[in-house]
Parts: sequence; structure tokens; C-alpha cells
Amino acid sequence: MTTDPLVVFTPSGKRGRFPAGTPVLTAARQLGVDLDSVCGGRGICSKCQITPSYGEFPKHGVSVADGALSEWNAVEQRYDDKRGLKPGRRLGCQAQIVSDVVIDVPPESQVHKQVIRKAASARAITMAPATRLYFIEVTEPDMQEPTGDLERLAQALKAQWEIDSVTADLSLMGKLQPALRKGKWQVTVALHKGHRDSAHRIIDIWPGLHEGGLYGLAIDLGSTTIAAHLTDLETGEVKASSGLMNPQIRFGEDLMSRVSYAMMNSGGDKEMTGAVRSALNDLTSAIADEAGIDAALIVETVFVCNPVMHHLLLGLDPVELGQAPFALATSDALELPASELELSTMNPRARVYVLPCIAGHVGADAAAVALSEEPGRSEDLVLVVDVGTNAEIVLGNTTRVLACSSPTGPAFEGAQISSGQRAAPGAIERVEIDPATKEPRFRVIGSDLWSDEPGFDKATAVTGITGICGSGIIEAVAEMRMAGLLDDSGLIGSAAQTGTARSVPEGRTHAYLLHDGSADGGPVITVTQGDIRAIQLAKSALYAGARLLMDEMGVDRVDRVVLAGAFGAHISTKHAMVLGMIPDCPLDKVTSAGNAAGTGARIALCNADARVEIERVVREITKVETAIEPKFQDHFVAANAIPHKTDPFPELAKVMTLPQVAFNTGGDGEHGGGRRRRRRA
Amino acid sequence: MTTDPLVVFTPSGKRGRFPAGTPVLTAARQLGVDLDSVCGGRGICSKCQITPSYGEFPKHGVSVADGALSEWNAVEQRYDDKRGLKPGRRLGCQAQIVSDVVIDVPPESQVHKQVIRKAASARAITMAPATRLYFIEVTEPDMQEPTGDLERLAQALKAQWEIDSVTADLSLMGKLQPALRKGKWQVTVALHKGHRDSAHRIIDIWPGLHEGGLYGLAIDLGSTTIAAHLTDLETGEVKASSGLMNPQIRFGEDLMSRVSYAMMNSGGDKEMTGAVRSALNDLTSAIADEAGIDAALIVETVFVCNPVMHHLLLGLDPVELGQAPFALATSDALELPASELELSTMNPRARVYVLPCIAGHVGADAAAVALSEEPGRSEDLVLVVDVGTNAEIVLGNTTRVLACSSPTGPAFEGAQISSGQRAAPGAIERVEIDPATKEPRFRVIGSDLWSDEPGFDKATAVTGITGICGSGIIEAVAEMRMAGLLDDSGLIGSAAQTGTARSVPEGRTHAYLLHDGSADGGPVITVTQGDIRAIQLAKSALYAGARLLMDEMGVDRVDRVVLAGAFGAHISTKHAMVLGMIPDCPLDKVTSAGNAAGTGARIALCNADARVEIERVVREITKVETAIEPKFQDHFVAANAIPHKTDPFPELAKVMTLPQVAFNTGGDGEHGGGRRRRRRA
Repeated sequence: MTTDPLVVFTPSGKRGRFPAGTPVLTAARQLGVDLDSVCGGRGICSKCQITPSYGEFPKHGVSVADGALSEWNAVEQRYDDKRGLKPGRRLGCQAQIVSDVVIDVPPESQVHKQVIRKAASARAITMAPATRLYFIEVTEPDMQEPTGDLERLAQALKAQWEIDSVTADLSLMGKLQPALRKGKWQVTVALHKGHRDSAHRIIDIWPGLHEGGLYGLAIDLGSTTIAAHLTDLETGEVKASSGLMNPQIRFGEDLMSRVSYAMMNSGGDKEMTGAVRSALNDLTSAIADEAGIDAALIVETVFVCNPVMHHLLLGLDPVELGQAPFALATSDALELPASELELSTMNPRARVYVLPCIAGHVGADAAAVALSEEPGRSEDLVLVVDVGTNAEIVLGNTTRVLACSSPTGPAFEGAQISSGQRAAPGAIERVEIDPATKEPRFRVIGSDLWSDEPGFDKATAVTGITGICGSGIIEAVAEMRMAGLLDDSGLIGSAAQTGTARSVPEGRTHAYLLHDGSADGGPVITVTQGDIRAIQLAKSALYAGARLLMDEMGVDRVDRVVLAGAFGAHISTKHAMVLGMIPDCPLDKVTSAGNAAGTGARIALCNADARVEIERVVREITKVETAIEPKFQDHFVAANAIPHKTDPFPELAKVMTLPQVAFNTGGDGEHGGGRRRRRRA
Repeated sequence: MTTDPLVVFTPSGKRGRFPAGTPVLTAARQLGVDLDSVCGGRGICSKCQITPSYGEFPKHGVSVADGALSEWNAVEQRYDDKRGLKPGRRLGCQAQIVSDVVIDVPPESQVHKQVIRKAASARAITMAPATRLYFIEVTEPDMQEPTGDLERLAQALKAQWEIDSVTADLSLMGKLQPALRKGKWQVTVALHKGHRDSAHRIIDIWPGLHEGGLYGLAIDLGSTTIAAHLTDLETGEVKASSGLMNPQIRFGEDLMSRVSYAMMNSGGDKEMTGAVRSALNDLTSAIADEAGIDAALIVETVFVCNPVMHHLLLGLDPVELGQAPFALATSDALELPASELELSTMNPRARVYVLPCIAGHVGADAAAVALSEEPGRSEDLVLVVDVGTNAEIVLGNTTRVLACSSPTGPAFEGAQISSGQRAAPGAIERVEIDPATKEPRFRVIGSDLWSDEPGFDKATAVTGITGICGSGIIEAVAEMRMAGLLDDSGLIGSAAQTGTARSVPEGRTHAYLLHDGSADGGPVITVTQGDIRAIQLAKSALYAGARLLMDEMGVDRVDRVVLAGAFGAHISTKHAMVLGMIPDCPLDKVTSAGNAAGTGARIALCNADARVEIERVVREITKVETAIEPKFQDHFVAANAIPHKTDPFPELAKVMTLPQVAFNTGGDGEHGGGRRRRRRA
């Protein structure tokens, strides 16, 4: 009695015995090894490349010699001549098992390959896209068995890939017959599997083997900016990233202005919907051009957005979101054809997935942050803050996750700041103020040099120094506080009080002169008392939201803080803490997660199981509504000081001592926090 | 111990004991009695009307007295004042059981009420439409439980109607919030349940109780005419029937000309698709106007059509249907949004159901005939013939069902006939020829008088006598044969041979003068040798198709014949038999089923279960392709004589003897069947 050869696959470690002559791909499938194949083992797609390992493998107890696999064959030779195979590689569908062998499946041959995310703390994304390619051979039509071409194609998918419930819309049916005949009854189909039902929709069809790839868009649709990542749905690679301003800005800078516009103007919601959809069409074309791909290969798009943008994207009137009880028309995740959103520049049958909204003020963007940062899997109590025009705030650990949204307003993005501007070349993004001399130095976007370093003038000659962006104003205010130019109530001292001529009078208050470019015809950039007040309002709203969640959780402190959002990536954690934007926490436990909402969108794009997961998580999240919660107002008012006084900051105190200063101007009519403090009293 | 009162429902006979105070509707539901309710027992829809029976009911063993139900209440009084209740009627949701009672559910209160069909032999249609109305009360939004309005509506359907898997498209979501608020959280929804999945789609929503009804269209989309029946989806009543010419006629009279048009003209298929969709939109508006209903209440449409019309309706290029192997793009039944067919004048979310095609030449119209006539449930072997430009032929009994299509051409519809015209006022539709005098008499559409009856001239003065329609030409040819004006090869005798001056020379052949209106400036209507030949070709094709199915079934005769189609309703069975259109059969076993395809469409419209049924039946039907079957040619050639000679006609012989005549013109170059007979030899 002979024993069949033993096959061991790495890295999975799966093993089994197979009769000599069994193709490696067949063995892999029977063992459930994750080995890709689009052509189903016909030697044409090359997705099933493997590397046989020769020599001793004591770990697996298998001794392997050359000859353990069948000889290099003509199909492999042809493929190698035409496209080239890496040294040592074989095609898993061609190479047959001869004797005991260890087979390595390289990452690019795995269906569920992992995509490494940039943030060090982040888990990799496992590829499991909803849309995949399948190569099939379809039976030719026969008058004796007069089924339709679509039905025979469905039979082929069933027989060759064990796929059921295949459907197609009319536009696809129109492409079917020419493609089948041109491909001589061999075609590649892109199939989208819904994550909530078993239907497989044919998104597109190509004669023969389609080698042009499949792509998806992950879109973070913000109130101010729209950011898109064009992603390869086979490898997970981001081929291009692109952004543009949300054209709805002309209807209102912030969300509530847009809701008002819809309320006050009949058809106003439709106007805004049309504007954003048109921008998305432009963005799709532009990003495809940038990546050098055909936009028709974009077969999926995932959206994350706040509830108002969610409704305006979907063509739903957002008026109910403008008033209590802030009822969403729909809160669940949506899976729908892109054509229903008039997204006409991608594949005409592309599918859209919109993450679920958590509540009327807590949107799919917050859900995306939860998907990306996974507070529910954290043993530590983690606070995730995604700062934009609205801040999405999520607090949780393995026991419970809470979420709210807080109306920080646009100050953190440089809007409503006297010299404010969006983050763009020429904007001051970093600020330091010498506590002794009270003199500033700064850096502008587009140069790595500080303003007091040699070559700075030359480096900034092209862009100029045009204003101050969100991260710049935060650093400026925090630095002013650290340098004693600002008291803890947020009041800027006079030149006499601060001892620097940079404290210049402005009306009944003072401003700090950061940069005077007037000699060269440039702007004079100051931080005014009004700017301080705007930042105080924004940071108080952010802190109050976080504090409300902590109250709900019954805790006084958090273990770690994640700053998310494009803005979170640029903010200095120390300055954020000095400002009192976030609760006290060891500085090394405050990290930046980059654009967590965008990452959440990418995860949902690359992995359909993640859609099931986030829908479950959102159902379990405790929603906290800031707008009607009296405690929010209390926290908001109390958080006005810099840093606020209600909670102790022992961790901040470990690394720095803020000067104790108090300016008295004899009246606080223009005082940043006074009015609100009085209200609370 | 007291015993709960006994309730017996008629006509179902279902019975059970319920605690005193149980509403009748509740008892009915628990027993599975078919008692309608849209409002769910709130006393506002009046669908649950019942009639309590008082007195002795020995059959049920229950003695019932007045007082067996609770007293007439305020809700019933209000309803009666407002709308009126028939005497004796109660609202099932208001009347409570007090003691033993027999409750009759009148037909109009049954959900699955039966609609009586006109044809005596036909089964009634049981109402079980895919789209139904549900009245619900939706929980108001709450910031503590911030689900969307759609999700709360779905919860209400689950709680109040046990309905799961509710979905809605974006256009419906846009109507949701205003309707809920206008209806004070009470709304009626029209829900469409797919017959292949468990999804319930919200088709429309109305504030409060919607009392405007729901409608559907059953459309028989023929090559020549489009016929539609507007049907009440609650009662099954046909509210209006309307038809118009298929505007595709300008691209080709018959199907193959249209396929050619698509082949020869780039974009030709799209032109034809546009034309038919536009006509359907006009037809929808017109039929709604005729019935006096809002076209937006049309929420479902069922189509039956031949494969070429099927593809052109769906926007699929029909070119593959023009050549062997006649591959359909898709053969299965389709359930899709009306908007995908650009049907824009009905409800924007209306659903379309297209019956399955049986084969490349045997369409959804044949499937509809099978659904209507149910050959598979017949103990007798039944031949169903639906005559149009193509004839759909179905043969079967409980053991097996076969189907084919035969290209009869348009002669049976009066086209390609020298004096032919479509069936319209002024057309000769009935013909008799006196065997002794050879003189004709006839009737024209629009008058009940024969042409030799007093008042005929006056009765036809308005329309005139304009031509001869399909049924007229068939009767004329059969009568000519019976009167000895025609020999069995189809040759018209000369005046000398036939002994009548109505045999007039026409070229090398003769014609029979049916009517000379030239004195009044009207047409001269003759039956020419060419007309005879056209009818011979058509009837040979029809007979050959039937005969092919009989061969396949292994039989020489059928038990009964059903003539279907608008044309079938007007044809004289005796004349059809004389002509040899159909196989020999006792004349009383030849019946007309009216528009069986249209009836099949109505059944599929009114009863979603029938869709499952016909899809199963179609899978089991044996498809016979006439176009490539050599025996079809043999039968076709052999069937050319009048009646044909290959099969005996004992049943026809029982009721009449055809004269034995033979005309010899010394040459048969213009002879109807000669050429083909030679080919066969």
C-alpha cells in the first residue's frame, strides 16, 4: 500500500495528502487554503502563483526535494515568456503534486491579502471586497435546450465557482450577448455580492480574461472638503487620493446654514444635492485620470459623511435634522446602485455603500471612525475625536461604546478667524513663542524651515505668508497662553501687561502681532481677541462633548486619546492639551490616527465583512445627543478657560507649568468667556 | 367551569372557541380565516365587514341569537353615517364575540377573493396580488432612540403586520418624512412582495388611510397590437381595457423584418425600443384617464409578449433571435422596476413582471397561454392555438406539455391579402356562399345584419364596406371550398368550371368577386388566387406546428382544441376545420378562449403565486423548435391542400361532406401548393 504525497501550505500550515498528479490549486481549494484564482485553473490569470520550497522542513516534518512537483510545463513557459514569472514561482493550477512538498503562498496570491495601514497602532485591512472577478466558460446555446445566455452564464458560475443567485440589470443584459460571442464563450464577470442577501449582481462583463483590474472609491464627504481614495480592489493599494471643496459651501459654510437654506428655499435641498453629485462626478473622472485608469473600472464606492451631508447626498430633504428630535429619514446602512445617486462617471452599474448613521447628529463619519479605531476592541478606555466643522466623538472600551457629535464650528479649520485660511501653501501651520522675549517663530505650509532659520524668506518667496490655518491658530493660542500673553480666561494682555510691543491695541481689546508682511505688500497677521474667543468656543464644544460621554460612562479620565481627521494629523498634542481641547491624559497616550473616517471608508470598501461588523457595532453604540443635554451646556461654559478649570490636569502638569497670570481690563464686555461664565452662575 | 363561546366562520367552516369580548377580526386571524383588513383593526378601513347569522344553524350545531355579538358601537355608527354599511353588516374589528355565533365573510371582505372569468370553462382568478396596502401607526422619533423614520416604519410593519425585510428606494425615502408628519404618524403603505425573495418594497406611502385603491396593468404586447387591461388590485375588476397599434410596425410588419431592421441599422433596436416604450407611456395615461383614476396608482404591470417584442421592450438587441440557434439574452421571468423600462407615466416605483420565455421562438405570450389554459392540468389532450402574426401552439395534458411557435405570417390578420384590412368597422368579418347559386352574403364589423337582409345598406352607410379582415378571409376561403369554387389544391375555377360569373379572370388565374362597390365609388372586393395562397401558407404553418407537437407527443389526434387570441374569439370553428387550420376534432370540442395570453397576464397580475407556478411550468415544458425541424417542412408542404390530405378528418366528415372538385388549368405556375408539393416529392 502506498501513501499519497503530503502537501503542507505556508503560511497557513494547512496540510493534507493528495494523489500524485493533483494540481496544487486543487489541493489548496480542498484544504481551504487562501489561494487566488480568477480563471478557475485554466493557466491564464496567473493569480495562483506559488513557491514550492525545497530542502528540509523539520518544522513540518517533510523533507522536500526538487521533483516534488511536476515539471515546468508549456502553459507556464508561455505565461513566463509573455509576462514573466518571478524566479522560483510556479502556477498553482499547472504544477502537480508528485511527492511530499511544502508550498508557500506569497501574499499577492492570497485572496484575503492584508493591506498594511500607515498608522503604527492600526490593524491591517484584510482584503475581502464585495466585488470580485470570475473567469468562466459558458455553454453555447442549443436549440434543444433553449435557455437564455444569462441563464447559461449563471449555470457556469454555479458549476465553476459554486455561485448562486446571479442577477443582472437590463444594461448588463445588453452587453452579454456580444461579450460572449467575442470571447468565444469565455468571459470575465465582475460580481458584486450583497452583504445582507445572497444575490450576486453582475456589474460588468468582458470577453476573455479581463486584466484591467477593478477599483473602488472610498469617499469622506465632509461639510467643507470631499476626500476620495481610489483603491485597487484586488490588492487594496491606494492608486490615487484626491480632494476638492464641497461646492455646497456656497449655500452655507456650516451644516445648519445648509439646513436653513433647504428650509427657506423651495427646492433648495435639490440644488445642494445636485451640486454635490456633480462634484462627485468631476472628482471621479479626475481621480481616475490621475491614476491612469478607465473610470468605468470603478465598480464600488463607499461613503462616510455626517447626517446632513448623508441626506443631501441621497437626495433627502434635511429639514428634520434642523430641529429636535433630529429625525433621520433613514439611519441604517444603504447598499444601492450608483446610478440612483446620479453618479454617472463611474461604471454605470457600480454599487454604493453608505455607512450607517448613529443618530441625527452623529453620522456615518462617526461610524467610520468607530470602524477604523475600534474602540469596542480596546481594553483601555479610549477617546476618539475626529475634528472637522463638527467633531465626532467616540468613547469606549470592550464593555461599551458611546458616541456623540459636537458643533465645534469652523474655527479649527481656520474659518471665522481674522487672518484665518484653509490649510494650503502659505498658511502658518506651526507657531512657537519664546516665553522670555515673547517673540514668535513659525513655519508655513510648503517649507520645512522655521521663520528664524536662514533661507526661510527664499523658501516662502513663491507662496508668500498668506494667513494662518487651523493647526496654526491652535498652536498660536496655546503658545500665547504658555508665554503669559493670555490669562486663563483667554484675555490678551496689553503691551504694558505683557511687556511686548507685539500686544497691539484693537478696539477695546488687544491683539498679538504674529507677522507683519506689509513692507512687502503682504498681510499683517495677528491673533485677535475675537480669534481667541472663536477658538475658546470651538474647544469648549469639543471638550464638553467628550466630557458628556465620560459622564455617561461614569469616568473622570480616559486611558488614551486618538486625534483623528486630517486636522488631527497636524495638531500638536501638547498644544491641544494646553488649550484644554481634550481631557487630561499622559501626553504619550495621545496619538494621531490621520483621517480615521476616511480609513473607515477604505476598510468598508476593501472588506465586505466589515460592513456587517460596523452595522452591528452601530446598533450597539450608546448615542448621546449633545443638543438637548443640559449638562452639555454646563460643560461647555465651564470649559471656556485655558485650560479649563473644572477638571484637574495632573498629566499636563507633569510636563509643564503654565504661568499664573491675570489681566484686568476693567470690563469684560469683549471678554471671551465672561458672558458665558455669568450665565452659568 | 364556563366554556368560551364557539365561533364558526362561513364559507370556510373554520371554527374555534374564544373568550367573550374577542373581536371577530382577532378570532378570524387566529383561525386563519381569510378576512381582509388594511387598517389592522382600527375601525377605519371597513375591509373586515362580516355578517353575523342569527337563528338555528343545525349544520354547525350552533344555535345563535341576536346578542351573540357585542352591540353596535360608536365606531360602526360613525362609519355607517359617513359611508354606509349594508344592512346586517358589522365591522369585524369592532364587533366582539359574546356567545356562540356563526359569522359569514362576504366575498368582498376576503383577501383572496375570486374573480370570475368570462370563458365558461375557465377557472376563476384568486386574488393574491404582489402589492397590497397596509395601514400602520409609526412610533414618533425620540432622541433617546435615534433610529431613522424608515427603520421605525419597518418596526411598525413587523409589530403590526408581521412583515420583515422592508426596503425602499431613495425616491420613496424622500416622501417618507412629510407623509408621516402629515398623517400624524399614521400612514398607509403599498408594499410589493417579490415572489422569489422575501423583500417587501415600499412602492408608495400616503398620510392616514389611503382609500384611492391600487391598480395594475396586464399588457399583451403583440407584434401588431398592444392590448392593456387596467385591473383593480384589490377586487380584480377590470376597470378599463384599451389597445393601440404597435408603433414598431413602421420598422417592419413582422418580427423578422424588425430583427432585420436592427441588423441593418446601427441603433435600430434602440429606435424600436424607444417607440414601444413611448407608446406604452401613452397607453398608460390613456387607460387611466378612461377609468378615471390617477395613473400614479398603477403600481404593477405584467407583460406577455413574443421573444422579439420581449427583447425590444427590455432594450436588448434582438439580432441573435434572427438566426439559429435563436439565443435569447435572457429567458427567465423578470421582476424589475418600471423605471428601468422608462415607463414614466405610472407610479415612479411601480414594478414590472415579465413572464418567462419558453424558447427563442416561443415567448412569454405562449407561457401566458399555458398559464391561462393550464394544459398541464387537463386530463384530456388539449391543443391550444393562439393565432397572431406568429402562432403560439401548446399541446399537453397532465403527463406532459409541449410548446412551439409557428410563423403564420400576417395573413390571418388581414395583411398581405389583396382586399385585406385589420378588423375595424367596415371590414367584412363573416361570409357565406350558397352552394347552389354560388352567391355570397356577408356581414361587416359595425352591423349585425347580413348583406342580404333589409336595412343592411343603411346600417353600413357610415362605415362603408372597406375590405375583408382576418376572420372574413378565412370564412371566404372555406366557403369557396364548400361551394365547390375551389378544389382541394386551392385552385379557383373559371366561370365555366364553377358555373358563376363571380369567377373572374385575373392574369392567368381567377378571383372570386365578393362585393362590387364601384358603382358607389367603393372598392371591388375579391378573393384572389394570391389570397388563397397566402391563407394556405398561413394555415399550413399553423397546422404543421400543431402536427409537430403531436408527433413529439406520439399521438395522431387531440381530444379538444382551444382557439385563443383576439382572432380566435372571432373565428368560426367549422370554417377553421374546413380550411385544415387545426387537426380533426369533434366540432363541439373546439372552443374559443378569447385572448388567452392577455388572460395569462391578468392572472399573473392578480396572483403572485401564479408567477411561481408559470415559472415552474415553463421549466418543465418541452420546447419544440419549428425553424430547424425537417418534419416541420414536411408537414407544412403536406398541409397545403384544403383541407390537407395527410390526416383523415372523420369528425369533420360527420357534419359535412366537401364536394370533390378538381380544376385543371393546364399549368400550375401560379398554383398555391404546387411548387411546395413538388419539393416534397
